[in-house]
Amino acid sequence: MAQQERAIATRRRLLVGAAEVFDERGYAAASINEIQARSGVKKGAMYFHFKSKEEIAQGVMASQLELPTEPRSSSASPMQQVIDLTHELAHRLRTDVLFRASIRLTVEQGTFQPHDSDVYDWWLRVFARDLARAQGAGELRAELTPEDVAASVVGSFTGIQMLSHVTCDRRDLHDRLTKWWQQILPGITTPKTAAGLAPAGSPELDLTGTG
Amino acid sequence: MAQQERAIATRRRLLVGAAEVFDERGYAAASINEIQARSGVKKGAMYFHFKSKEEIAQGVMASQLELPTEPRSSSASPMQQVIDLTHELAHRLRTDVLFRASIRLTVEQGTFQPHDSDVYDWWLRVFARDLARAQGAGELRAELTPEDVAASVVGSFTGIQMLSHVTCDRRDLHDRLTKWWQQILPGITTPKTAAGLAPAGSPELDLTGTG
Repeated sequence: MAQQERAIATRRRLLVGAAEVFDERGYAAASINEIQARSGVKKGAMYFHFKSKEEIAQGVMASQLELPTEPRSSSASPMQQVIDLTHELAHRLRTDVLFRASIRLTVEQGTFQPHDSDVYDWWLRVFARDLARAQGAGELRAELTPEDVAASVVGSFTGIQMLSHVTCDRRDLHDRLTKWWQQILPGITTPKTAAGLAPAGSPELDLTGTG
Repeated sequence: MAQQERAIATRRRLLVGAAEVFDERGYAAASINEIQARSGVKKGAMYFHFKSKEEIAQGVMASQLELPTEPRSSSASPMQQVIDLTHELAHRLRTDVLFRASIRLTVEQGTFQPHDSDVYDWWLRVFARDLARAQGAGELRAELTPEDVAASVVGSFTGIQMLSHVTCDRRDLHDRLTKWWQQILPGITTPKTAAGLAPAGSPELDLTGTG
């Protein structure tokens, strides 16, 4: 068991080291030697876990799929939980290099492999599931489908974080996200719901521990 | 004059050839030799115009800034013109390799250079200008700023086209964009305005010539 735990720890060190390099340089300019040096893992151990730079990148991207997707938010409103999840992801982008690198690699896709929509499809399913709960609670307008709204949320979040990244290193990300929610909530929620929602995230949402 | 016209034509051939290669492979995997071969321009002529792959990429990205930004739409509603402009850009992404490559390079930024927000800033200004017109006409809600709505439009458009690119090669782009407008219009326009707008683009918007 100790050996298995060590293997898990080594794999994690490799992923974090790779994430730091990918986050700084992007996929194309990252070298496997730098990843090895940064993670402090011996070459043999590295090749035991990953055969190539592409495999490491796949591992970093797949780390997104291990994130908890059940709402951390303690809000009783499913729609508020959806809003809170986007702020939680925004916070993670600012503080968690593994998540940040995995998003960068997702965005750079096509540079190093044919399109792979797995990560997008996964987020589309997560948000469609949560928005279906909101619809069940009478919060999402009945004439919309959770899938169509999920596509807008995932697409808009992706682009808004990119714009915030390029223009100000994501310093205004929570603010941009809050304004986007203010603008879109009247069109996707029922009138009585919108007034009770907090576009900036619910007050009880504690983001200090998510980085 | 004939010589100057030839130089302009050569530069254009280089940009289109480079755009084809960047669009297929991304910046990192594109080679200057392939760009030269694809454009059919002699090496000396190429180096007269561009000293490096990075300079060619800058040229492709800058081609966005030469697009006409005055609305082609003949709609009398400034807000409808904003909607129409996004559909025009979506159409251009599907049909114009130079525009498609310039967007890809913009998205891949940071892979090959420090962040350069010029192109985003330019689109933010274009949309803020048009949305200010919509506000002047009483169509954009008075409590919003054109700049904040422009940030949502540019951010959302960027991410929605990426998602559409990765999941279905942009086949559903107009549809996704239409649904996004349907969802956000109630929150950004005055109630009497929303009913008169066509989220799918105005009927008179002729996109056949923009490719």
